[in-house]
Amino acid sequence: MNETLPALHAAAAAEVQRRLDRKTKPTGSLGRLEELSVTLAGITGRLDGAFPNKVVLIAAGDHGVAAQGVSLYPAEVTPQMVLNFLSGGAAISVLARQAGARVVVADAGVNYAAFPEHPALLKLSLGLGTADMSRGPAMSRETAALAVLKGRQAVARLAEQGLDLLAIGEMGIGNTTPSAALCACLLQLEPELVTGRGTGVDAAGWQRKVDVIKRSLAVNQPDPADALDCLAKVGGFEIGLLAGAILESAARGIPVVLDGFITGAAALVAWKLDPQVRHFLLASHQSLEIGHKHLLERLGLRAYLNLELRLGEGSGAALFLPLVDAAAAVLRDMATFESAGVSDKG
Amino acid sequence: MNETLPALHAAAAAEVQRRLDRKTKPTGSLGRLEELSVTLAGITGRLDGAFPNKVVLIAAGDHGVAAQGVSLYPAEVTPQMVLNFLSGGAAISVLARQAGARVVVADAGVNYAAFPEHPALLKLSLGLGTADMSRGPAMSRETAALAVLKGRQAVARLAEQGLDLLAIGEMGIGNTTPSAALCACLLQLEPELVTGRGTGVDAAGWQRKVDVIKRSLAVNQPDPADALDCLAKVGGFEIGLLAGAILESAARGIPVVLDGFITGAAALVAWKLDPQVRHFLLASHQSLEIGHKHLLERLGLRAYLNLELRLGEGSGAALFLPLVDAAAAVLRDMATFESAGVSDKG
Repeated sequence: MNETLPALHAAAAAEVQRRLDRKTKPTGSLGRLEELSVTLAGITGRLDGAFPNKVVLIAAGDHGVAAQGVSLYPAEVTPQMVLNFLSGGAAISVLARQAGARVVVADAGVNYAAFPEHPALLKLSLGLGTADMSRGPAMSRETAALAVLKGRQAVARLAEQGLDLLAIGEMGIGNTTPSAALCACLLQLEPELVTGRGTGVDAAGWQRKVDVIKRSLAVNQPDPADALDCLAKVGGFEIGLLAGAILESAARGIPVVLDGFITGAAALVAWKLDPQVRHFLLASHQSLEIGHKHLLERLGLRAYLNLELRLGEGSGAALFLPLVDAAAAVLRDMATFESAGVSDKG
Repeated sequence: MNETLPALHAAAAAEVQRRLDRKTKPTGSLGRLEELSVTLAGITGRLDGAFPNKVVLIAAGDHGVAAQGVSLYPAEVTPQMVLNFLSGGAAISVLARQAGARVVVADAGVNYAAFPEHPALLKLSLGLGTADMSRGPAMSRETAALAVLKGRQAVARLAEQGLDLLAIGEMGIGNTTPSAALCACLLQLEPELVTGRGTGVDAAGWQRKVDVIKRSLAVNQPDPADALDCLAKVGGFEIGLLAGAILESAARGIPVVLDGFITGAAALVAWKLDPQVRHFLLASHQSLEIGHKHLLERLGLRAYLNLELRLGEGSGAALFLPLVDAAAAVLRDMATFESAGVSDKG
């Protein structure tokens, strides 16, 4: 499954910086907006920074470990929210629409067999939820590999329809728990350091989560050097699918906008499978989940926004998209010192 | 000139939070986006969070102190950039357009007497630049009061044309120097703590700036308890005009979106004139200018964005506006647990 990712377009990145430096503003004064334009040019090789075909791909899956009481919400919320995504009433539905992005939902393995046919729903189910990782592997190695493959195939199909920027999100009651387990395993950090409050558990709930993660790691003994082993033993269907989506997007030179902690865990898996993938990633926001900063640091990414979000779904990624459009508008529409007759610094 | 600002609408703020809590998301999980909606409802008393008439008011002025070599750019750039704003080629032109906001430029006192008539230009000049504050007061107390008054009148006129959210920006070569002086004076901080690199001076340039600020404070002895005295002695025309704009907007219950350090200095002046004004302010972004964080802290404001901007013009305020629209879309379009048939937490 591994292949060489494309090289970054250093010349395009340099040309975009050169163009920004001729715009009527002090050099570098648009800060991270300029950095964003340069990064995007490096990934795509294009100079206009325009991304008309933005897709938010939300992967959904259920988690056997939810039975251990790691979330405030019942597992039935996962399929209910998938239906909410499809009917346009969820936060990500609203925020993606606002940002001019199309939402596509992938059922990676929700515990619900009756999803209707819907143009925005990809039926890629790997099962009706993972097994309880605190008692054994969440899934087999074969299933983990298949999840990654399905993610790659999903993005390949989206790319055929027209895709120039991929934002990713997720839904799955309990999924900060496998994400924290993956983070602990792949980054070799203590579970306490990467376990957060999820959708809002209290101190006792947090301790229970930490204990469940420790038990899951002890029972399964995932190999930190083997991303697929970690994904199979303490991961999730939607996380595997997103790891594949990231790899395929990168392979096609299409930038990937991460959301928060769970998409970050998917990025960690992808990065362990191919370390070069990190150059194709944008960290939209810094989540309140404490593990998120560790994983971004290890991926060498800096979040653009910090709005203290802890929702998931791709909400932070969608809130970031207007910055991409603003960066493109600057490149396209701003005058240069020459064209505007403005004196440059002496 | 002082009058009582309107009370905040606590009931509207509480009602918006109640509505957000029924939306299909974990309580509070949209973080600062929810806080933004609640703040805006408190200011306006409205529940929909919709601000169709957004204006970016850019006040421009020149500074006698620019002769002391505190900026990398020649003073002629101030009028050149005003013309660039009007012809739509500046960063703020592009970013405001992208955000659906109208740009209005006020000539508060640029060293240029030949501006054309233009529907987006308000000719409110208080003179062809301030006097050099390192040798004496930048302007008289009467002129400072007039600058504030003109700012109030400008916003009153904008409000008559339809204004429901005011973003402010500025242009004035050298104006981080009076802003730092105002900050040092009004907050009683050492100039070193509030003096930054402006548009990019080097270490020697920074030291020169600090020395100029110290000399200006020593020569003028502004009274920290008297905001108008500080504004007159070490301020600027555009800063005074913006202080007035802020006060008038607040008096009308219209939220004010600050940009960076210079608009923050204007907010400090307004706040010293009426401490309640801070409740009507939104800090769009954290600037790279080191004084900005002191000033926001003292105003009790937290920036929403940190994009390491140091451009001014209102660019950070414009980049923040899509968050306002996103917050409104969430309020308007997101489903509730009841409407979507999603289970709430147990």
